[in-house]
Amino acid sequence: MGRVTERRRVIRIRDGAISARADTLVAEEPLEIRLNGKPLAITMRTPGDDFALAAGFLVSEGVLGRADELANIVYCAGATEDGVNTYNVVDVKPAPGVPIPDITLERNVYTTSSCGLCGKASLDAVRTTARWPVGDDENNPVRIDPETLAALPDRLRSAQRVFDRTGGLHAAALFTPDGRLLDVREDVGRHNAVDKLIGRALQQGLLPLSGAVLLVSGRASFELAQKAVMAGIPVLAAVSAPSSLAVDLAAETGLTLVGFLRGASMNVYAGEHRLALRTVAGGT
Amino acid sequence: MGRVTERRRVIRIRDGAISARADTLVAEEPLEIRLNGKPLAITMRTPGDDFALAAGFLVSEGVLGRADELANIVYCAGATEDGVNTYNVVDVKPAPGVPIPDITLERNVYTTSSCGLCGKASLDAVRTTARWPVGDDENNPVRIDPETLAALPDRLRSAQRVFDRTGGLHAAALFTPDGRLLDVREDVGRHNAVDKLIGRALQQGLLPLSGAVLLVSGRASFELAQKAVMAGIPVLAAVSAPSSLAVDLAAETGLTLVGFLRGASMNVYAGEHRLALRTVAGGT
Repeated sequence: MGRVTERRRVIRIRDGAISARADTLVAEEPLEIRLNGKPLAITMRTPGDDFALAAGFLVSEGVLGRADELANIVYCAGATEDGVNTYNVVDVKPAPGVPIPDITLERNVYTTSSCGLCGKASLDAVRTTARWPVGDDENNPVRIDPETLAALPDRLRSAQRVFDRTGGLHAAALFTPDGRLLDVREDVGRHNAVDKLIGRALQQGLLPLSGAVLLVSGRASFELAQKAVMAGIPVLAAVSAPSSLAVDLAAETGLTLVGFLRGASMNVYAGEHRLALRTVAGGT
Repeated sequence: MGRVTERRRVIRIRDGAISARADTLVAEEPLEIRLNGKPLAITMRTPGDDFALAAGFLVSEGVLGRADELANIVYCAGATEDGVNTYNVVDVKPAPGVPIPDITLERNVYTTSSCGLCGKASLDAVRTTARWPVGDDENNPVRIDPETLAALPDRLRSAQRVFDRTGGLHAAALFTPDGRLLDVREDVGRHNAVDKLIGRALQQGLLPLSGAVLLVSGRASFELAQKAVMAGIPVLAAVSAPSSLAVDLAAETGLTLVGFLRGASMNVYAGEHRLALRTVAGGT
């Protein structure tokens, strides 16, 4: 797409010295996601991986779960008044037989899908719509060393392509439990970066991601924890703080939630059985 | 409300040492905003200042602009199955005569109000629904010294109450052009912190905020720039990066947009005439 970054003129002030120059900014544009032609949501995103973003969004919503449930995704033409394709509208066609939610009746769910769902109702909704329990293959349970976890943020940063130039992107990555990078995506919206990862995995037939660790560059909100749960991911690690509701959801669903993953330090908020801990001392 | 933070048990790992303790997390709960009884949006927010949040949200949507256009705001009871008031649903009643948008027809606008609006359409929408041009009183134009701007992030941090304990909150503050703090709000959602500021200002009869500087602790997205424009704020400063669409909106509406405000350094992306700059040298 070539629109991940854009150039703009900027006036720089550095300790009183003033100069004008061109600067690289992260691109932000709206993406309207349609389902069988009906508008479902609009999200502000960084262009690129739009089909993966749309597919991942529909995984988070419980509409898609397997690659063969997705018939195709296309850019809609004629999205502007003069009929020019802005590549900012995509239409997702599920395969025949895939149940399509009643968008009108379920309006509130879709209204808020990009910004979190209604607490009590949505905690229930996740439990009922998630296709897989958050968990591991019984024969191959996920266990991860704290040392391995501690190394992931550096790997994420070295895999990020755009952040260094713009400072404006959230990143999300999937790793194996032994720390191998599977995929990394960046976006101006944190939820979009995760949807892009999950949508790619759907397209590649990799759902549920029951053997994967999801790392996000920022905070762990309820919404991100919910996306992990919907994709069957057993471990969510965040560089920054989690919210109370993210911790509650993790505890209820069995998701391992790690926050403040910095250097050799981290906090484990739920699902500590997946961490190879030797002893847990003290405690209030 | 007393729910700004919550306590949860956490396992801390620090350089191999493991301990269990109680930790303070930022509270995140859903707030459903109703307009005359009809659900309009749900946002994940930090409880507290809920009426201001709802009022500010409706300023951003162009529904409210003056204190006397707001009749009242109440918490709705019976929001859970057992009828317990969760204080997570508010109903806003505008004053008689205030035009109420057709929520059904305008669905897309409201769908995305918490997560950004559709690019082309919304750039137009801001221009048509903003009640005030972004600008200054002709007799009292806003001019701000770079040195004054540079001092604002430290003032914001010292005014933040919860961040130091949880690390999970976005903050937003209003300042006078000479650097005096007018108000500061914190929230798990960056847009909510700004809506709370603007809603308070509405309730106090202070809109348009034509003499104010808005500082946000994170990035400057299109959505935050739009909220500034809708409230008539002439200067938006962000500690981190702006997006391309935020810069475009600022340039089109006359908003002064400053990013990467750190120490004595900053980048000015639009509206530099409001900064007291001595000379601008060079440039590509």
